[in-house]
Amino acid sequence: MFGSDIFFKCENFQKVGAFKARGATNAVRSLDPVSLQKGVATHSSGNHAQALAWAAGLAGAKAYIVMPSNSSPVKVEAVKGYGGLITFCEPTLPSREATLLRVIGETGAVEIHPYNDNRIIAGQATSALELIEEIKGLDIILAPVGGGGLLSGTALSAFYFSQGTRVIAAEPLQADDAFRSFVSGAFIPSVNPQTIADGLRTSLGSLTFPVIQEHVSDIVTVSEESIVQAMKFIWERMKIIVETSSAVPFATILENKIHVKGKRIGIILSGGNVDLNNLPW
Amino acid sequence: MFGSDIFFKCENFQKVGAFKARGATNAVRSLDPVSLQKGVATHSSGNHAQALAWAAGLAGAKAYIVMPSNSSPVKVEAVKGYGGLITFCEPTLPSREATLLRVIGETGAVEIHPYNDNRIIAGQATSALELIEEIKGLDIILAPVGGGGLLSGTALSAFYFSQGTRVIAAEPLQADDAFRSFVSGAFIPSVNPQTIADGLRTSLGSLTFPVIQEHVSDIVTVSEESIVQAMKFIWERMKIIVETSSAVPFATILENKIHVKGKRIGIILSGGNVDLNNLPW
Repeated sequence: MFGSDIFFKCENFQKVGAFKARGATNAVRSLDPVSLQKGVATHSSGNHAQALAWAAGLAGAKAYIVMPSNSSPVKVEAVKGYGGLITFCEPTLPSREATLLRVIGETGAVEIHPYNDNRIIAGQATSALELIEEIKGLDIILAPVGGGGLLSGTALSAFYFSQGTRVIAAEPLQADDAFRSFVSGAFIPSVNPQTIADGLRTSLGSLTFPVIQEHVSDIVTVSEESIVQAMKFIWERMKIIVETSSAVPFATILENKIHVKGKRIGIILSGGNVDLNNLPW
Repeated sequence: MFGSDIFFKCENFQKVGAFKARGATNAVRSLDPVSLQKGVATHSSGNHAQALAWAAGLAGAKAYIVMPSNSSPVKVEAVKGYGGLITFCEPTLPSREATLLRVIGETGAVEIHPYNDNRIIAGQATSALELIEEIKGLDIILAPVGGGGLLSGTALSAFYFSQGTRVIAAEPLQADDAFRSFVSGAFIPSVNPQTIADGLRTSLGSLTFPVIQEHVSDIVTVSEESIVQAMKFIWERMKIIVETSSAVPFATILENKIHVKGKRIGIILSGGNVDLNNLPW
């Protein structure tokens, strides 16, 4: 269809259904025994919550997860299923942060931020590393960008292990804080963005933004319509389930925003956690 | 979940999205050059139509496909996309058969029946053969049964290449003609069955029924509710798209109809062609 070879790295088949399992595992395994005994903590309503609960469980550690009271029941059950200890809070960032601080104060658990943490970034980097090891001579790797954990890890893997490969980020136009930060050179936070790609609503972090500035070639934005179209296309043609955020990189190709003809393209499909009762078409 | 090792043979990832590509390819490749030049023909509203059009196209042959006038536009477009030459007919079996005879009379094309054809059976048999070659020591292989092409091929592969493996068929309770034929020993046709598993509404054939009687260990039936539950379970946990008929074998395990504990089970997921705008939940 596009005159190019496109290779998909299927993080939807990863444990907990998303690349987040990589960073969480690396972060938990990086802890010293004393810290591990006290456990880990985070606030998250998404895939990071499940991933951290899962990774902590593997290490025999406790995972304290602060979740907004309006989190979807499916996600709450998933975190519980992995053994996560949930504390509910109000669905606001101040309440999430205050509740997390209280939990950490009570337990001594180590906070594991979903993306602004070098252990997380290094873990997420293993996805692109595996892709590079398996598929030689990639001209471009496309990854979505939300907080930038996956993207900065991807860019570092390409920089250190495949210098001929450019890393291009894909972002919803309606949550284009990373794009605007990238082109302006100054951090611009994400303010209540209205995108269907719920994993990409977060702002860049103080650790991820500099890596992205240095090692990412470009950030490309796509419309909400293209995201849904790309997602449905992947479901129909590839017979695999990806979530909205996962479809954003492929949407850049559907929108003809990237010159792919004659090139070898790697796309990181970031996850496959979808509410099957609430599809966007 | 079940205390057993379950291996899935993903025919949803096969060309044209279903195992039907195997039989169609084998049938087309079995033709002599003179027949090939006249082309192939069938009546089908489902995956066989696409598969035959695709296989004929690969061989540079024409595929004449008789389709009922009420076939879904998606399927009609798919057959056209593979280069199939469509003749529409009334949505009745007599009209389908009469129209096919007329097309064959006009073109001299060779009829390729969707399942009651030894070339088709042999082609479908390669799915279980590959599974057996890759996964050693399977106690059971589960396959769905409609017309019996996939099932008889599966049973023959197990008989010739893995004698310790039992083949058990799975069928919707609301289309249990194969089950009733199997236990009575006499062919009982399927009469207007009301099952969501649209690929399994057909009757056994004169070639498939004897093979099934001789080489299949058991036929197990499942409810419509279990089929939908199994399909959704596979989508949610495995992140892959399977069609209703594909989910029928796994539904037998969900219904606890088969003793799987401690066993190595192979399941043939027969296809993944689904109308994403019309899901059964």
